[in-house]
Amino acid sequence: MSGSLERFSINQMTVKQLSLPELADGCARLGIRNVGLWREPVQAHGLEATAKLVRDAGLTVTTLCRGGFFTAVDPRERAAALADNRRAIDEAAALGTDTLVLVSGGLPAGSKDLYGARERIADALSELGPYAERHGVRLAIEPLHPMYAADRCVVSTLAQALDLAERFPAHQVGVTVDTYHIWWDDTAPAQIARAGAGGRIHTFQLADWTTPLPEGVLTGRGQIGDGSIDMREWQDHVEAAGYTGAIEVELFNDVLWARDGQEVLAETARRFTEHTR
Amino acid sequence: MSGSLERFSINQMTVKQLSLPELADGCARLGIRNVGLWREPVQAHGLEATAKLVRDAGLTVTTLCRGGFFTAVDPRERAAALADNRRAIDEAAALGTDTLVLVSGGLPAGSKDLYGARERIADALSELGPYAERHGVRLAIEPLHPMYAADRCVVSTLAQALDLAERFPAHQVGVTVDTYHIWWDDTAPAQIARAGAGGRIHTFQLADWTTPLPEGVLTGRGQIGDGSIDMREWQDHVEAAGYTGAIEVELFNDVLWARDGQEVLAETARRFTEHTR
Repeated sequence: MSGSLERFSINQMTVKQLSLPELADGCARLGIRNVGLWREPVQAHGLEATAKLVRDAGLTVTTLCRGGFFTAVDPRERAAALADNRRAIDEAAALGTDTLVLVSGGLPAGSKDLYGARERIADALSELGPYAERHGVRLAIEPLHPMYAADRCVVSTLAQALDLAERFPAHQVGVTVDTYHIWWDDTAPAQIARAGAGGRIHTFQLADWTTPLPEGVLTGRGQIGDGSIDMREWQDHVEAAGYTGAIEVELFNDVLWARDGQEVLAETARRFTEHTR
Repeated sequence: MSGSLERFSINQMTVKQLSLPELADGCARLGIRNVGLWREPVQAHGLEATAKLVRDAGLTVTTLCRGGFFTAVDPRERAAALADNRRAIDEAAALGTDTLVLVSGGLPAGSKDLYGARERIADALSELGPYAERHGVRLAIEPLHPMYAADRCVVSTLAQALDLAERFPAHQVGVTVDTYHIWWDDTAPAQIARAGAGGRIHTFQLADWTTPLPEGVLTGRGQIGDGSIDMREWQDHVEAAGYTGAIEVELFNDVLWARDGQEVLAETARRFTEHTR
């Protein structure tokens, strides 16, 4: 059994070699209805111009990536991060998406205090949650694979993400379920059920796990079907938990980025239909 | 407050550029009483010759690394793995150590079934546990960091390791607590308490977490004090759980391997005293 493209969303980073107009053209040609966008290329194209482009193309923006980076200790850095996240919320609202993905941030230089860093994330969320709500945007804490705990994201599991999110209303703060980050975790299915019961699965993303990992481990997210992750298994988990939203494919992969973007877009759509229900 | 070298054990892999006699000489010079050995260099030096060398040097062998790789599906591969692990148990006994560290193995080629792989580990332990017991050797399942789940070890957390170990008597099967693999896990302190209560902390190893990770992520285990892990915090956890054994420093690090081995040995001993109690 294969999935249709109806729920497929192409995260812009998967085909970052494409400009936004090229991406919109490719989506129109392939029948792709949904895109996940990133702040930097949107800003480069212009926020209003991007909003008009996707509107005219009939595309739904499923998520904006990304806010976060809340773990600084320095008060000025913290204030700057909060201000930047308010801008990210504004941008999400302008693009018509209801979901801003958050990558929470790693340990400050020299720090070994994971617990303190996680508390500073909670502090930031308490300021941003109400702001996001007023703009019709939900914050989606993304637990990143534990290999990023030091330098990128001290939130490493769905359980940790939910421990943070549940301090706030679900329409303010939920989680991102991304197969790449959680596939190894035998407690993740129960945490997906917990997230679903609370209405906190704000987005569901796919990437496959391939080895060997590249230096720095950032650009090794594998094409769907190339690696160790059973995508249907995770789709079943989120759907059993009540998730009916878009399924975004977000790959960072040097090999894919070196290829023709339209070809990668078509391949990704095909792999999606082959590996989902 | 600083630790003494009394409980320090140098894992041979940390200074793999040293021959076994060079390692014994270095330990004598620095007052190091304990070593963790690896099968391949022991076999290269000769099992009986190594046993005599460490005995004559008055060194205690804290662990032998490593058995495991239990996840194959093919019956002949499985039989070969079991036979090899019986030899590893024999070698551990001949070296006078009571602990064989197990790296359980990754997913077989093409498989996406983590659960099945973990069950095959349990099957292997049920055969090897009684054999190890008869030889006075305890098996110590080492959960490896989740970034190794596909290609090296499907046991990624202390909880998973204990779920396996607890199917067997503690004097047959316990766990390895290694800071490098568990430092990101906020449930690990409770799992250490669980392991200690069951008498299952069979060895405690240190390595620090430094970034960026190298390609393949195998040789980036940081020198103690160079990274993000608070060693005293984890020492406190294992000691609160009743652990009084040796504390092994096991680093795989291309930069350290390129340096003079005696210098790295002395540095590692110094860092140990600086970063433990």
